[in-house]
Amino acid sequence: MLLDVALTPALVPDLASGPPDDGLAVVVIDTLRFTSTVISALAAGADGILPVAEEDAARSRAAELGALLGGERDALPLPGFDLGNSPPSYDQSTVAGRLIVMTTTNGTRAVGATAEAGRVLAGCLLNAEVTADELTAADPERVLLLCAGRRGAVAADDLATAGCLAGSLLLMAAAEPTDAARTAIALFDAWKGDLLGLLNRSASGRKLASLGLVADIEFCARVDAVPLVAELDDAGIFRGRSEP
Amino acid sequence: MLLDVALTPALVPDLASGPPDDGLAVVVIDTLRFTSTVISALAAGADGILPVAEEDAARSRAAELGALLGGERDALPLPGFDLGNSPPSYDQSTVAGRLIVMTTTNGTRAVGATAEAGRVLAGCLLNAEVTADELTAADPERVLLLCAGRRGAVAADDLATAGCLAGSLLLMAAAEPTDAARTAIALFDAWKGDLLGLLNRSASGRKLASLGLVADIEFCARVDAVPLVAELDDAGIFRGRSEP
Repeated sequence: MLLDVALTPALVPDLASGPPDDGLAVVVIDTLRFTSTVISALAAGADGILPVAEEDAARSRAAELGALLGGERDALPLPGFDLGNSPPSYDQSTVAGRLIVMTTTNGTRAVGATAEAGRVLAGCLLNAEVTADELTAADPERVLLLCAGRRGAVAADDLATAGCLAGSLLLMAAAEPTDAARTAIALFDAWKGDLLGLLNRSASGRKLASLGLVADIEFCARVDAVPLVAELDDAGIFRGRSEP
Repeated sequence: MLLDVALTPALVPDLASGPPDDGLAVVVIDTLRFTSTVISALAAGADGILPVAEEDAARSRAAELGALLGGERDALPLPGFDLGNSPPSYDQSTVAGRLIVMTTTNGTRAVGATAEAGRVLAGCLLNAEVTADELTAADPERVLLLCAGRRGAVAADDLATAGCLAGSLLLMAAAEPTDAARTAIALFDAWKGDLLGLLNRSASGRKLASLGLVADIEFCARVDAVPLVAELDDAGIFRGRSEP
């Protein structure tokens, strides 16, 4: 297994244009907060999450599908949306049995960079171990941990999550890491004793704190709290399955 | 001091188009091997190094200036060039008193991304400490450690060098690190006991080893071996000055 990390979506130039690649598994990572929201919603019984990059398209898809509409711009809820991008707000009473259309500043756009991958998973700290287990069992030729980043820059919350996954894959799956994968592992290892500290210091974390959303950071920092694998289906909808 | 790291030249989108920024100091880093060659050549008494991105332009500039011509493509010397990109070959008997026009696959192109910076330095492991000292003394508003990378991807040799510099600046200059700067520091800290091991494992290092150029890797891994600051002058030529 070749183990690569894209530190931002701009650093996956060959994916968008290449031929379909059945041997490639991509994990989209937007720990603060899109993929943490996806995992939380699916764990709360949501039927699925359809990521849509643009706000207008998200509105029309949600209306068409009778879905809930969630997401943010600049970390804030959008007018007329049912939900923002706060993971704990996607609770059972709100989302159970529902399809949810989501659009976010960085995360849903990152999903758009995965078009040619054989499999696309959603990863965050909440489901790091089960996602690494899933990839180890599937043993694809190539794994790309795709960090959503923040406005085109590297986001420490995403990269540390990639490092958490990459470290597990290196131990379990005899993976061959790229320079970027080694970088992610080093960031995770440096901060694994204080991941909440890293998230609080990150640009995304500081933005959330400035909006009074510290509880979201703490929620997303709970490593392996949700044993659920999330994967895009053929319709481009993230579906969850719990692992024993 | 805001302390940022561009993990590849593609991640400095605002530099090329923005207005001149006197408060910005950029350190271009291409440890294997362009900036190590620049430092070695200047330490050996070269008058200056003029980086030129394209091969044809490099040939005509060298002819025009009566300069030596050095560089590589795909790590190999170019036909008709006086020198390749191997730092130890830029010795006193070859380069003393000479201007050298250089073109390389990644490093000289990275220099092109610095157009709007107030100051542009060349950094590598060889001159890490003096470069950090220089920046600490100058105390610019913003420091950008610009990693040349390798074919658009993150290069561990460059990023670890950025981390070496960034760690010193954090200690000495009360710098405020971005997420990318924290990432570089983590990579350096993880490998500081075995930087040669990291360089050997890096994509650039493996390429050099495959060409029998292991001695170049060992040469470039010698942290703080050359107490020389290199800076672009108004004509776009790197000039050196030795620090006591």
